[in-house]
Amino acid sequence: MTTSEKATDNTYPLLGKMDSPADLRRLPLTSLPEVCGEMRRFLINSLSGNPGHFASSMGAVELTVALHYVFNTPYDRIVWDVGHQAYGHKLLTGRRDAFPTNRKFNGISGFPNPDESEYDTFTAGHASNSISAALGMAVASRMNTDSPERKVVAVIGDASISGGLAFEGLNNAANTPNNLLIILNDNNMSIDANVGALHSYLAQITTSRGYNNLRYKLYKLLKKMHLVSDQRKGSILRFNNSLKALLTREQNIFEGLNVRYFGPVDGHDVGLLIKTLSDIKDMTGPKILHIKTVKGKGYEPAEKNPAVWHAPGKFDPATGEREEDCCRCDKPVPPKFQDVFGTTLLELAREDSRIVGITAAMPSGTSISILQGVMPDRVFDVGISEGHAVTFAGGLAKEGLHPFVAIYSSFLQRSYDQIIHDVAIQRLPVTFCIDRAGLVGEDGVTHHGIFDIAYLRAVPGLVVASPRDEEALRNLMFTASRYNAPMAVRYPRGKGSMTDWHTPLRLLEIGKGEKLSDGRDVAVISSGPIASEVSEAIARLEAEGVSVAHYDMTFLKPLDTAILDEIIAAELPVVTVEDGTVIGGLGSAVADYLTEKGRGDIPLHKLGVPDCFIAQGTVAQLRHLCGIDAEAIADAVREIQLQTLHAR
Amino acid sequence: MTTSEKATDNTYPLLGKMDSPADLRRLPLTSLPEVCGEMRRFLINSLSGNPGHFASSMGAVELTVALHYVFNTPYDRIVWDVGHQAYGHKLLTGRRDAFPTNRKFNGISGFPNPDESEYDTFTAGHASNSISAALGMAVASRMNTDSPERKVVAVIGDASISGGLAFEGLNNAANTPNNLLIILNDNNMSIDANVGALHSYLAQITTSRGYNNLRYKLYKLLKKMHLVSDQRKGSILRFNNSLKALLTREQNIFEGLNVRYFGPVDGHDVGLLIKTLSDIKDMTGPKILHIKTVKGKGYEPAEKNPAVWHAPGKFDPATGEREEDCCRCDKPVPPKFQDVFGTTLLELAREDSRIVGITAAMPSGTSISILQGVMPDRVFDVGISEGHAVTFAGGLAKEGLHPFVAIYSSFLQRSYDQIIHDVAIQRLPVTFCIDRAGLVGEDGVTHHGIFDIAYLRAVPGLVVASPRDEEALRNLMFTASRYNAPMAVRYPRGKGSMTDWHTPLRLLEIGKGEKLSDGRDVAVISSGPIASEVSEAIARLEAEGVSVAHYDMTFLKPLDTAILDEIIAAELPVVTVEDGTVIGGLGSAVADYLTEKGRGDIPLHKLGVPDCFIAQGTVAQLRHLCGIDAEAIADAVREIQLQTLHAR
Repeated sequence: MTTSEKATDNTYPLLGKMDSPADLRRLPLTSLPEVCGEMRRFLINSLSGNPGHFASSMGAVELTVALHYVFNTPYDRIVWDVGHQAYGHKLLTGRRDAFPTNRKFNGISGFPNPDESEYDTFTAGHASNSISAALGMAVASRMNTDSPERKVVAVIGDASISGGLAFEGLNNAANTPNNLLIILNDNNMSIDANVGALHSYLAQITTSRGYNNLRYKLYKLLKKMHLVSDQRKGSILRFNNSLKALLTREQNIFEGLNVRYFGPVDGHDVGLLIKTLSDIKDMTGPKILHIKTVKGKGYEPAEKNPAVWHAPGKFDPATGEREEDCCRCDKPVPPKFQDVFGTTLLELAREDSRIVGITAAMPSGTSISILQGVMPDRVFDVGISEGHAVTFAGGLAKEGLHPFVAIYSSFLQRSYDQIIHDVAIQRLPVTFCIDRAGLVGEDGVTHHGIFDIAYLRAVPGLVVASPRDEEALRNLMFTASRYNAPMAVRYPRGKGSMTDWHTPLRLLEIGKGEKLSDGRDVAVISSGPIASEVSEAIARLEAEGVSVAHYDMTFLKPLDTAILDEIIAAELPVVTVEDGTVIGGLGSAVADYLTEKGRGDIPLHKLGVPDCFIAQGTVAQLRHLCGIDAEAIADAVREIQLQTLHAR
Repeated sequence: MTTSEKATDNTYPLLGKMDSPADLRRLPLTSLPEVCGEMRRFLINSLSGNPGHFASSMGAVELTVALHYVFNTPYDRIVWDVGHQAYGHKLLTGRRDAFPTNRKFNGISGFPNPDESEYDTFTAGHASNSISAALGMAVASRMNTDSPERKVVAVIGDASISGGLAFEGLNNAANTPNNLLIILNDNNMSIDANVGALHSYLAQITTSRGYNNLRYKLYKLLKKMHLVSDQRKGSILRFNNSLKALLTREQNIFEGLNVRYFGPVDGHDVGLLIKTLSDIKDMTGPKILHIKTVKGKGYEPAEKNPAVWHAPGKFDPATGEREEDCCRCDKPVPPKFQDVFGTTLLELAREDSRIVGITAAMPSGTSISILQGVMPDRVFDVGISEGHAVTFAGGLAKEGLHPFVAIYSSFLQRSYDQIIHDVAIQRLPVTFCIDRAGLVGEDGVTHHGIFDIAYLRAVPGLVVASPRDEEALRNLMFTASRYNAPMAVRYPRGKGSMTDWHTPLRLLEIGKGEKLSDGRDVAVISSGPIASEVSEAIARLEAEGVSVAHYDMTFLKPLDTAILDEIIAAELPVVTVEDGTVIGGLGSAVADYLTEKGRGDIPLHKLGVPDCFIAQGTVAQLRHLCGIDAEAIADAVREIQLQTLHAR
């Protein structure tokens, strides 16, 4: 821990003494702006050296303080959506000193995590779940005889609230008696610029302070008169809505859904937030407080360029200079896979007018921005709506276009039904470009893309492939663009290994893998860039005199059965290696083929992510943990060779 | 075909001569009410003898006629949502004479199906996809130089539009230039009564005819003045909205999302529908027409009880008497599995106050209505929102309740991410009661529940089980209620085989299967009620002198490895039988275990649904098609026995 991070020294006179929100609640209101200032300084100092999600948490500092000040946490529940904004919450809830371990192996999680703290009330990471989860908690609290007065608050951003899951939650919020408070933290941004009609709508809402004040007074008056019971809620709500319609001549979307609306209010005025929250916290029934915040608030470079500062990497706190990511596609260093995707998509789109790109609120996170920058009309950013992204792609494909849908592996779980129902049944030419496939590293348990092989292999007619390097990614994309049916191409977070990656495009044969090295003792079959771990293991093994054949199973479906037949003919024991769950993946596919051929007697050892949830760490640490690094591969080869020799 | 179904006779003088919508469009407006009358008579006559989805199609007759009359189908595209209402559309688009084969093996599909007709523009079956699909089609049409004038219409019900996917589509409809028209077919019903705030909202909308008229006039005036271009669209829209706000003192939710709103209009006045559609069809930009219809319109028994008449089974057209479903839980015949679920859930809820039930718009379709009838506060019908249903369950469980979420297998595909992210990661005690698992029969390709084993086995920590009979379903539910982590219990559509099913509840050991019969030659491992096909096969085989051991793998995860070890010890060849895709299912799990144990040499033959999409038919026909009926099982046993003898 550096001096600047050590929170108990004089740098953080208030924050440094705060071990729980109870400490915060003992402070006078007048001290809170100083607490906010210290939190921001802490975040700047800490994240400049140990990178993480920066701008969202900077924008939510006052909200975080106000929530823990007004609500009796952890008895009252705060449910953060996504959790990019929850670092301040971690600082106030006993994890200030652990914060330098944020996102690290065996450290604290970069997202709210109920296994880590009772203040983290629900899993966060994937967008738009907070309203549904908090509604469940609020309804259960009312049903539990021991906690009917418990307050439950969901904090959701203006991008997350546009997801279908959030709408489903809103649509159901008024179904059942509950005390849910939804805070709409509106910073006018997704990770990139926000899109969609709801976003435009939110930007236009400008309810008068006068209206809000009038409403609080009305509520207090009625409460005094003992009129505010659940039975009366409906009529008061209707009166309120009429009042509002009278004052503003419009009915609010949220009130159209029977959720009481307040706001917008300045989300950086901690005093106003506390007053407002105190005013509305005891109202029964679901309600929404719309606050306006600035992403990156309090750090000028981040305020100016909030998309870049969403997760800026290391930076100099004083100057705001970021430790530049040295990967740019025109430099002779291995690029990120996502940049290879973006560059190649642009090349393909230039040659083929049917090709369009789709992203669900991740133009820069998927590098589809490379195409967008040149041909903005050929890219559709549909916002946080992975389900819609896929069905929309199905519609485009039905009318003759060929969409490339770029979605992170773990978020594509949101589209499973749409992949089956809206694309695969009709065999529509949609290419799923599955970024962040495999272990993603620091984002941890919610973000690892380890289920896609299993859930996609089960889909009839879907081709599933994984490139082992940048060149193969390019060729798979080119092949997919010429293939008149759905194909999924999974590739990992981060960089590959090729510096000379910008190779001429080549059509691949669907279902054809590649032999990377010959060997007499053991066959290793891998899928995707984890091939590099296999190569390293082979180098070690050769030094020991073990001769290993290495096959790249480029297509997980259909399998290259010629490769398997060759292995069967050579009677080699097999080790499979994949960057995904061992259940239903490459190894299972190989086992299935061997048993189908009546050659299940061939020894098979399957390496992959074990059947449990995996926390955060570097990719190298996690590969080691899961037993899919070079060392574990070498061990498995040695073991299966010994067993085979023994058996013979 | 009966006389009443033969459409070319005098019963249907107009409909009987109509072979495509072009024939319809040649008729004068004044003939259309008669066409509607004939269509209704046809539906009543046909569906009374060959059951299907009745009431929805009856309610959409005028709309269907108006759409095909005004729009130039199939060049213009109509996208039906779900498709329960599309029988009339099938009658008008060349499938009148084939209609007696509706929902039958090798017949026409009960849902719109692009493989069947060019008029069926997109797969339908799962709710809420039409807006996204149609938006894709509308955007692609504008991008295609050969079809910029093509019109695209999505028809969506008031229940479907409350799904998150539909909201995502709506939220994106105004993102991109397009001519999408959304028809909101509002019959105030889901399959059962509709729920949710949007539903309440729709019920309150009462825009004046005067406003709509004024608006059309304004549009026509502007068009005459050549002012309606895309560039002007925005300003006209704003003007319209202000106009509306002025007239109605409220802003409509849809217009808040920048989708022009018209309505509500009477959906049974075919002349008015045609006039309205003609007025708005050439307007650029996304728009929604809200029509009010009556589910079951034109058949009194159905109008009176639309939920029962959603899919009434056979009935007497004259009297409306339905061929009563003989399954009632208090009678000594095998009940439907869903009724065993409903009855057992009520028993469990009576004993355990933590237990609640959740359904996504299917109280009667899942029989959770049995609990709802007695303890309405313990059941949450969240409407068509499977994603929310699961996350909401996670929230309830987090605060100490134990939700039983009843969702059909194929619809649960919508909740895959929520199962992983909002339940499994936190190991929350949510029980997934997966109805309609396996081949469902007549509902066909979109509804078969054949992927659940594959996609759920990959989820860490999730117990996956399937009861082979009613008693086992009861015991699994009881066991799940005492299990403090997530469990999935899959059971099929239709009836089981036990008459004496109401047995005392018994706690099962997680991961423990059962030996049903001893045998010396071959071991058959099955999962679920398909065990009955195995029993039948064994009876035949025993007559031939083949001795078969039969094991019920009650738990698909964790597997009963003691059973497998017993089989390994006996050196029996194995046949696995499951009612789901062979990829990643029971057979794969067994193959994985055998290879892990180094006993892949044991012959294994996996029977299951092959890796392709399966159309409609009776369950018996489809089991035969897939090779999982008694005959196919017996064949597989004989074959593997011969192979094994030969090998020895």
